Amino acid sequence: MTAIGIIGSKGRMGQALVAAIAEAEHAHAGGADQGDDVAALVGASDVLVDFSSPKALQATLDACVAAGKPIVIGTTGLEDAHHAAIDAAATNIPVLQTGNTSLGVNMLAALVEQAAGRLGDDWDIEIVEMHHRHKVDAPSGTAKLLGEAAARGREIDLANNSESGRDGITGARKKGAIGFAALRGGSVAGDHTVILASDEERIELTHRAENRMIFARGAVKAAGWLAGQSAGRYGMDGVLGLQ
Amino acid sequence: MTAIGIIGSKGRMGQALVAAIAEAEHAHAGGADQGDDVAALVGASDVLVDFSSPKALQATLDACVAAGKPIVIGTTGLEDAHHAAIDAAATNIPVLQTGNTSLGVNMLAALVEQAAGRLGDDWDIEIVEMHHRHKVDAPSGTAKLLGEAAARGREIDLANNSESGRDGITGARKKGAIGFAALRGGSVAGDHTVILASDEERIELTHRAENRMIFARGAVKAAGWLAGQSAGRYGMDGVLGLQ
Amino acid sequence: MTAIGIIGSKGRMGQALVAAIAEAEHAHAGGADQGDDVAALVGASDVLVDFSSPKALQATLDACVAAGKPIVIGTTGLEDAHHAAIDAAATNIPVLQTGNTSLGVNMLAALVEQAAGRLGDDWDIEIVEMHHRHKVDAPSGTAKLLGEAAARGREIDLANNSESGRDGITGARKKGAIGFAALRGGSVAGDHTVILASDEERIELTHRAENRMIFARGAVKAAGWLAGQSAGRYGMDGVLGLQ
Amino acid sequence: MTAIGIIGSKGRMGQALVAAIAEAEHAHAGGADQGDDVAALVGASDVLVDFSSPKALQATLDACVAAGKPIVIGTTGLEDAHHAAIDAAATNIPVLQTGNTSLGVNMLAALVEQAAGRLGDDWDIEIVEMHHRHKVDAPSGTAKLLGEAAARGREIDLANNSESGRDGITGARKKGAIGFAALRGGSVAGDHTVILASDEERIELTHRAENRMIFARGAVKAAGWLAGQSAGRYGMDGVLGLQ
Repeated sequence: MTAIGIIGSKGRMGQALVAAIAEAEHAHAGGADQGDDVAALVGASDVLVDFSSPKALQATLDACVAAGKPIVIGTTGLEDAHHAAIDAAATNIPVLQTGNTSLGVNMLAALVEQAAGRLGDDWDIEIVEMHHRHKVDAPSGTAKLLGEAAARGREIDLANNSESGRDGITGARKKGAIGFAALRGGSVAGDHTVILASDEERIELTHRAENRMIFARGAVKAAGWLAGQSAGRYGMDGVLGLQ
Repeated sequence: MTAIGIIGSKGRMGQALVAAIAEAEHAHAGGADQGDDVAALVGASDVLVDFSSPKALQATLDACVAAGKPIVIGTTGLEDAHHAAIDAAATNIPVLQTGNTSLGVNMLAALVEQAAGRLGDDWDIEIVEMHHRHKVDAPSGTAKLLGEAAARGREIDLANNSESGRDGITGARKKGAIGFAALRGGSVAGDHTVILASDEERIELTHRAENRMIFARGAVKAAGWLAGQSAGRYGMDGVLGLQ
Repeated sequence: MTAIGIIGSKGRMGQALVAAIAEAEHAHAGGADQGDDVAALVGASDVLVDFSSPKALQATLDACVAAGKPIVIGTTGLEDAHHAAIDAAATNIPVLQTGNTSLGVNMLAALVEQAAGRLGDDWDIEIVEMHHRHKVDAPSGTAKLLGEAAARGREIDLANNSESGRDGITGARKKGAIGFAALRGGSVAGDHTVILASDEERIELTHRAENRMIFARGAVKAAGWLAGQSAGRYGMDGVLGLQ
Repeated sequence: MTAIGIIGSKGRMGQALVAAIAEAEHAHAGGADQGDDVAALVGASDVLVDFSSPKALQATLDACVAAGKPIVIGTTGLEDAHHAAIDAAATNIPVLQTGNTSLGVNMLAALVEQAAGRLGDDWDIEIVEMHHRHKVDAPSGTAKLLGEAAARGREIDLANNSESGRDGITGARKKGAIGFAALRGGSVAGDHTVILASDEERIELTHRAENRMIFARGAVKAAGWLAGQSAGRYGMDGVLGLQ
């Protein structure tokens, strides 16, 4: 049983984290939001989970280093300076930073990397995702994460090998390309499929999220795992035993 | 048992038609290609199937009208003048013209039209298709045919209500839009899915073609059906009993 | 705006109905459970929705007939005597009885009936469903409802034409059979797919439920529609305009 | 370029192998069937591919050992004595034996093993397959191969942990079980999906075969790879670089 403190506790994700902590039978050490005393929360916690904003990240990391407490960072929108701050902190404490805390998505990414690496480039890779009607960008961040996994497996650069938004006269598919397509509609929390298509056979690797609770649950699992690690920077691979 | 003559007999489709005629236990009345005497073939046939090119269409229709023989037209690339010629011929003989002779695709289009019409526009419609790596355009002709069916059901104009090629900052989905996405890879003969997505539930209507033989088989079934009709212009709806 | 009274208001479905009434901007006329005065609730309501148990059905129908109020019945486990009581009440008031109030599932059933009827029995029909790990029976009630729709379209009797639980040496598929398969796992609220498979082409008709709210939402939509009907017995087909 | 000899050359698989050898630009060293001189074929070949029957296996292995030639064995119905004979031969020559020569299926099995191993048993595993209407047994051999991969990843025994043929009152799903379901219809060459379902998220790992050519193609790829190996017993894992 681990005491988990939540940084950014008042949003939808904060509430989901409280539920996930209870479900996993860990202890909820409290929450801190903008203006609150982070150091007090850090002191009361065995490990921190941060889904707030990049602005407060430096102060949060400082408090964690000062107290020698591990931290899981699920905040999005991190820039180079934030990553440098994380690297610096990770010389003293365990830090897990990830763009997606779902166990299933991270497992899928590992499978995609392996399949893309083992099957040659006569297996065309396509990534299709569906999200609710309110989503304003495409492809989704998770689709890009899966594309990066495929590119890593194939030892190519994603930026120079992606095809997206096919419409009209596109010409034949470029050998080695990774294609993206986006579907929007209803209230879909997030479905992703990576297709590897060769002559007369296909592999399709899919993840379906029923709702956002899976991200909270994965973050709490990551926190429990991180509490037992030594200083260093980690990703979700470690939680899944994939490293 | 019906004697079926093939116009455009030497291509891949012509060969598939010969196999489909044998399979359906009809008789193969012979074939005609560019330069051949169409009138002789028409005379020897109970019904004609034409998968050649629009160029010869007028002469073919003239021969059919002269002999009073029905004709199934699966030729693509027809323009307004060709449709006018078909309408004129159809005052004298039965003519079935269609952009897709697959029974399954036409059945799916009928289901899509009905679902789009009955479910209100809080059900977002998305159409995703996958074809082999050599296909040079998107969306596929069949995806457009399905989009037209959805638009007809919803009594809207497809051209003013479609979203395709989503990539980057797209903004939220437009209410009432019909979305298209295209996947390319491997040797896929043609998979199409129409999704109707509302709050917390989804209907997905899919057609999967294993190979091109289904188009020949559907054309032969259409020919057998057309031989028993009176003069007029028909589509695949009639063959399926959907009119 | 319609005042909707809930019979069986304290269960999970009762709570979902309250939310769905608010969402649809109807009025919540109150609820009644075992031991409560149903007549008072009926008097205060424009239309009733009943998800309680078959035991109280006769008394509920009597109260509705006495007050001339329409009722939507989603109660399961009805026997012949209950159906007879419904038929009798329906000579005086509008009664809508259904085994599944989801709009999507009922739409799918209508599509399945049509496809099964139009496509001959060289299109094999298979029904596969997935539900959460706690479900204790197979196939699901909705799978059976879809099987009945397919059998109706094909004008056959389902009981004498179904294959389920394939395992071991089964022999080849019986011509005209309707097959059932059940998957269990996780927290899946309910996915159903009806496959029609012919030579080299397939149609797959799928419904996916994200959670149970869709049943409440469909019941409220049915109540709003039923309030404007004359006496008689109805199903969800009427709400979808499918009759 | 490798000279490949085919044992069991007159069946459908033999013909597919000839096509696959040409496609891969290897040389076809000839074929041998019941009653033919295997030793002559072995002498003329760099590597052998055997899709005949278990009866002739001992004689074939003897000929390969005598000539020091590698052999790919895709024959089904092998018993313990056959496996012992293969082990004995593999001390002298490279032997690759497999129940499925498709690259995609073997890749999928590796992914299934990894996912089952990394995700705990709160991820329920289900395997569903669809095959043509003529198939007489269930589940398919490939479904069992995938089930074995899942059981290996989870370090359990498949025989004691499988659930198949669910029908009627089944009770809740057993924790840790691996479920099987079989769909039959049309001309489907073979679709397999392994589902891992947890609370509110699912991973689905699918392989789709368009036709039987993929098995010939995989066998030829295996032959080319095996020609460069030293004595020993191998599986398809080696061809995919998965060992």
